[in-house]
Amino acid sequence: MLIKYGLNSGITSFGSAKDYILASSAAVLRRQQFLIRSLGGGYTDQTIQRRMQKVNSMSGTALEADSESILRAITPILDPNRHKGQAGKIAVIGGCREYTGAPYFAAISALKIGADLSHVFCTKDAAPVIKGYSPELIVHPILEESYSISGLGDEERWRISSKILAEVDKWMERFDCLVVGPGLGRDPYLLECVSEIMKHARQSNVPIVIDGDGLFLVTNSLDLVSGYPLAVLTPNVNEYKRLVQKVLSCEVNDRDAPELLQSLAKRIGGVTILQKGKSDLISDGDTVKSVSIYGSPRRCGGQGDILSGSVAVFLSWARATEKSTISAMNPTVLGCIAASALLRKAASLAFENKKRSTLTSDIIECLGRSLEDISPAS
Amino acid sequence: MLIKYGLNSGITSFGSAKDYILASSAAVLRRQQFLIRSLGGGYTDQTIQRRMQKVNSMSGTALEADSESILRAITPILDPNRHKGQAGKIAVIGGCREYTGAPYFAAISALKIGADLSHVFCTKDAAPVIKGYSPELIVHPILEESYSISGLGDEERWRISSKILAEVDKWMERFDCLVVGPGLGRDPYLLECVSEIMKHARQSNVPIVIDGDGLFLVTNSLDLVSGYPLAVLTPNVNEYKRLVQKVLSCEVNDRDAPELLQSLAKRIGGVTILQKGKSDLISDGDTVKSVSIYGSPRRCGGQGDILSGSVAVFLSWARATEKSTISAMNPTVLGCIAASALLRKAASLAFENKKRSTLTSDIIECLGRSLEDISPAS
Repeated sequence: MLIKYGLNSGITSFGSAKDYILASSAAVLRRQQFLIRSLGGGYTDQTIQRRMQKVNSMSGTALEADSESILRAITPILDPNRHKGQAGKIAVIGGCREYTGAPYFAAISALKIGADLSHVFCTKDAAPVIKGYSPELIVHPILEESYSISGLGDEERWRISSKILAEVDKWMERFDCLVVGPGLGRDPYLLECVSEIMKHARQSNVPIVIDGDGLFLVTNSLDLVSGYPLAVLTPNVNEYKRLVQKVLSCEVNDRDAPELLQSLAKRIGGVTILQKGKSDLISDGDTVKSVSIYGSPRRCGGQGDILSGSVAVFLSWARATEKSTISAMNPTVLGCIAASALLRKAASLAFENKKRSTLTSDIIECLGRSLEDISPAS
Repeated sequence: MLIKYGLNSGITSFGSAKDYILASSAAVLRRQQFLIRSLGGGYTDQTIQRRMQKVNSMSGTALEADSESILRAITPILDPNRHKGQAGKIAVIGGCREYTGAPYFAAISALKIGADLSHVFCTKDAAPVIKGYSPELIVHPILEESYSISGLGDEERWRISSKILAEVDKWMERFDCLVVGPGLGRDPYLLECVSEIMKHARQSNVPIVIDGDGLFLVTNSLDLVSGYPLAVLTPNVNEYKRLVQKVLSCEVNDRDAPELLQSLAKRIGGVTILQKGKSDLISDGDTVKSVSIYGSPRRCGGQGDILSGSVAVFLSWARATEKSTISAMNPTVLGCIAASALLRKAASLAFENKKRSTLTSDIIECLGRSLEDISPAS
């Protein structure tokens, strides 16, 4: 399933050169109309003009990323001189009384891709279960939900959140990336604590990948990520709709997908957004790229968790890669492109074997082989 | 990946005989300068001279151990007349609310290598999780962390530690070796209890392998192991740095690695130290050996736990081996050499198959085949 986007176009183009030029002009016109529509509120004419120039200047660059080359460029060489931790230390903030699978999927995926250490910070109820899935993870049972602190006064609740925050802070500087959201749930007290954790991560310049209920939190408290270039949001169709409605006050339409995504990322102050779909679209507000290679038609729950863990690893690697060996592109965008390509390849390998019965665990089992196929370890 | 150290030299030497002699002389000179520098404080001229003679007398013996021969020599023949327990009874002291994977890795590795019984002494929270990883382990939920005894007076706390100690004492004499540290955590009350357990082990002449948070404990309370020839420390890069700073008040440098390690082991009264790295270095203060065969560039967390469990088994076997069949070398050193070789072989086999996605569990799965390759059971 290889769908190539036409140059300078959000639509699929398989026709002749003439068709292509027509489609291309139509796309430019559409893009201009769209920008005038969607950026009207709060944007001056000058701003719109500058944005138009930027979008037009993308002409000639392919929307489809050369994702396998990018993955190879940012994946570090395995050097026997390195020691534990140097290939990546990831932490997942998620896992509550209700959800335990999602944080496990995210954390184990990070290890299977090549991170050295993978932590999970979850509620006390969730910890033994997540630990039980795998002895490879370091699971911290520290978060609290409202039910476990009911009856306590404000002061005691405040004391408990301070303790939780101090516990995460002890580790914060050691992490190359946080993943906030897999199996987080929507408990107000828990989300309040997680907001504080995100603020501290931001102060320490630790990148944050936000998925699942983390996106629910962020959509309602945009300040948590607004203007933070090390934030990556990975919304699915519905999470994306809510985000667009909230931020751009408009509806999603497939025709203008790249432009809309770019506007959204720009409007949230240059965060990177990985919009998951048949093709994955990635933008940091400056550039828009798509990844359409491989993939699987199976939509079993949990694949987004693999993706969030993978983005965390690849963006850490991209940040550590010497600028000369990769393009000038934002490391968070490069990380999203590589992670998307890897997941799509693993999903396609798993589907080849398991067809309709493919589960997320099957896809995780294919991460290693997929990575080895694209970027051999030696 | 077979790197042989030059004789009498800490540097890799692949050149001609002339190059080798030059490198060798340079190494001797460097070693002498180093000893004068590092042993200056508190050592008399006579001591230095004696140490110099000892180091010089190592000329002509290879730094690289013949690790596979040693492993074969100390691994007992499987004799149907023997009964349960005679091939080794190991106990891991570790596992707390936060960490459960590490003690499991150490304990299960001991069994997979050939020990008959493997126990874990951990906190009440950790026990069900560790039990859940494998029905093969005997898991004792007896340790306590500060949070579980908060609010208790000194007398009650003292009563609880006495009870913990009595519980471990019941078993102590049956164990061939303790492993202290995998997933132990750093809770002050817990570490206090573990200090007492170590004192009792020492009184009973039970060997103690110390890793992870056990090294944190020992670095801050050197008396626990100082002068105990049955203590083995297995520090990684950072743990080694802290130990050197604390004991020798100097910094680690790669050039003088064997000499520094020897000084450190000597200064702690002849304990054995296995310094983990690209090559593993082992010293008891008298001799220094390296193990560089096999190995893997993957640095996923947990490999150190496999090693600590392996050292426990092999040093027990080395102690039980008739002196005539092995060299006059210290059994703790022989145990470290065999364990290092086995882990490095298992890691290389796992990496061959799983590449970047190799996890600690994959390496454990290769312990049996590695042992069989080096020392066939029949």
